[in-house]
Amino acid sequence: MSNIREENKKYFNYRCIHQDKNSKARAGIISTPHGEIETPIFMPVGTHGAIKALTPEQTDSTGSQIILSNTYHLHLTPGSDLIKKAGGLHKFMNWEKPILTDSGGFQVFSLQKKGITEEGAIFKDQKGKDVLLTPETSIQIQQNLGSDIMMAFDECIPYPATEKYTKTSMDRTHRWLDRCIESWTDPRQSLFGIIQGSTYKNLREECAKEVIKRDLPGIAIGGVSVGEGPELMEKVVKMTAPLLPDNKPRYVMGVGNPEDLLMIWEHGIDMSDCIIPTKFARGGTLFTSRGKIRIKHRNYRRDFYPVDKACQCYTCSNFTRSYLKHLFDSNEILGQILATIHNIQFYIDLAKQAREAIMNNSYLDFKAEFLKNYKN
Amino acid sequence: MSNIREENKKYFNYRCIHQDKNSKARAGIISTPHGEIETPIFMPVGTHGAIKALTPEQTDSTGSQIILSNTYHLHLTPGSDLIKKAGGLHKFMNWEKPILTDSGGFQVFSLQKKGITEEGAIFKDQKGKDVLLTPETSIQIQQNLGSDIMMAFDECIPYPATEKYTKTSMDRTHRWLDRCIESWTDPRQSLFGIIQGSTYKNLREECAKEVIKRDLPGIAIGGVSVGEGPELMEKVVKMTAPLLPDNKPRYVMGVGNPEDLLMIWEHGIDMSDCIIPTKFARGGTLFTSRGKIRIKHRNYRRDFYPVDKACQCYTCSNFTRSYLKHLFDSNEILGQILATIHNIQFYIDLAKQAREAIMNNSYLDFKAEFLKNYKN
Repeated sequence: MSNIREENKKYFNYRCIHQDKNSKARAGIISTPHGEIETPIFMPVGTHGAIKALTPEQTDSTGSQIILSNTYHLHLTPGSDLIKKAGGLHKFMNWEKPILTDSGGFQVFSLQKKGITEEGAIFKDQKGKDVLLTPETSIQIQQNLGSDIMMAFDECIPYPATEKYTKTSMDRTHRWLDRCIESWTDPRQSLFGIIQGSTYKNLREECAKEVIKRDLPGIAIGGVSVGEGPELMEKVVKMTAPLLPDNKPRYVMGVGNPEDLLMIWEHGIDMSDCIIPTKFARGGTLFTSRGKIRIKHRNYRRDFYPVDKACQCYTCSNFTRSYLKHLFDSNEILGQILATIHNIQFYIDLAKQAREAIMNNSYLDFKAEFLKNYKN
Repeated sequence: MSNIREENKKYFNYRCIHQDKNSKARAGIISTPHGEIETPIFMPVGTHGAIKALTPEQTDSTGSQIILSNTYHLHLTPGSDLIKKAGGLHKFMNWEKPILTDSGGFQVFSLQKKGITEEGAIFKDQKGKDVLLTPETSIQIQQNLGSDIMMAFDECIPYPATEKYTKTSMDRTHRWLDRCIESWTDPRQSLFGIIQGSTYKNLREECAKEVIKRDLPGIAIGGVSVGEGPELMEKVVKMTAPLLPDNKPRYVMGVGNPEDLLMIWEHGIDMSDCIIPTKFARGGTLFTSRGKIRIKHRNYRRDFYPVDKACQCYTCSNFTRSYLKHLFDSNEILGQILATIHNIQFYIDLAKQAREAIMNNSYLDFKAEFLKNYKN
């Protein structure tokens, strides 16, 4: 490990460019083999090696700098051996910018599983067949995919969990982490550790200590957005973020709503991902600076304004709310496409504006102003 | 009418650029208020004011010069008054090139109808409500939409039909044609007449005579691709096309497969439209110079070639068959998008190649060569 980590430093690093004077929010740059990422950043999710409803060209047009794809799903279809043969996930899906792959650990939480043992987690696939994911197979799959950032294989536990179970699971996740590190062989890919510990301060601290001492290229806070609600989520981020080193990217997994992003950025988080903008888009819910709108509502029938007048995305530059409503009413795929472009760009723009505010030491003002206008 | 037709000549005309020496195939240019169209041309279908699964930018990238949209569907949702208020269909859907609208006459054939009277046709909409379409309302709707080319409201009858019914229907369609002409008030829009008559030579001749003497800007052959099969379709086109004037665009409605296009072009047809390329794309059937392929077939799992090596479309330039198969296997919308881009460009390129061959007096060789390679 010490060798690969040293090698890896040639391919990956994080530099903090500016620390906001009035909060812990920070602006930085992550360098990867597929280019630089200006942080804070939101990562759209492309579960099956495709951002749902968009071409990579369209995703690029939203200003997305890095996307997330799912190890477990790509392992099932089409299989990571095939993607390796195709030249890796970047080439397979024609996305030239950075890719982060999760480890399958979140699917331990979200999908029906048969059991967790010291070896790993056993899932049932759609045909009812057993699928075993271990720290070794998770890293092997991620190396076949060739992502820029790989996540350690962990157990993401739901809320609430007893302290006893959380501790048992966490200790096993640490042993899994060492097995992940043992399996890591490609220095162009960067392995991030994940801090679990549910809402228990002592366990979050213990877990942070364990992950930090392994000196990985980046660190994530996992086990949030698992049913605990916004207050507890902030409590966990607030107790964990200050424990993390300044010289590495900090990633909160699976978050969230615009309000959640503003919260985590305030606590010095650099990266996050969530299916909310893409999933909501396909259902006809669009984000605007004034709050979310349900585009199928009859109010939009004769509304010839763009979704958000302040937005410069392809959708807002070329189409009206009236047209979008018509597309959703007619079940036209184009409605989902245009809504997805807009929602992703809304998230990306939010991160850009946050970064600008940080550079001007006005992050807290920016956040307050956004929340004042944004009604839910 | 005579006034509007004279006015209309300022906005619309057809010039034959070259007549193939060895067949009736011809290359021409149609001028419209939204630009010129190089013929022969295939028109992709955007039933609800959107080419299914594509942004107008993507449709444009395929080389499409004109699209078709459906009067009946837009009349139901969102209503042509709304589209008029939005500034017309071009602006509503953000398509700046020419648009042709059908008249609803094809829906007399394809949808469940309650009855046909001298006044018009009564349909049941999706909620079971009666919808009356008459020559007057059809033209009014098309004028609200602001299409470049409007189609006369006719009865498109299925195959087979008795000579007696065909004659009765045709005579009524002629009376409807005069009412369409009476309703035509916008000289920037061009009204095309439609020749019916099923497979009866005497009726096709009678109908052609009636339509031609009304001196409309363009003439269509309707009532084909309604169950008669390729041999009878060719028979009808072959008996009707020579009756049409040389100085006007000739349009065969609702055709078809690549083989059908090659057939109608040979007989001097300039325009056609069909849902085949877009509909087949969404189902995973892709056109190639070697014939159609079903992209979900297991053969394509490890096929890292583009859909068609000879094709320059966005899909073939950037993605493999293996990736497309994966997208369809995973029910990703992007699969439908990429397949649609390819299929439309395949049709558009076919028309372009045909035009080039016509310019070189080698249309028949081009057709024979294409059919030699294209296996079904």
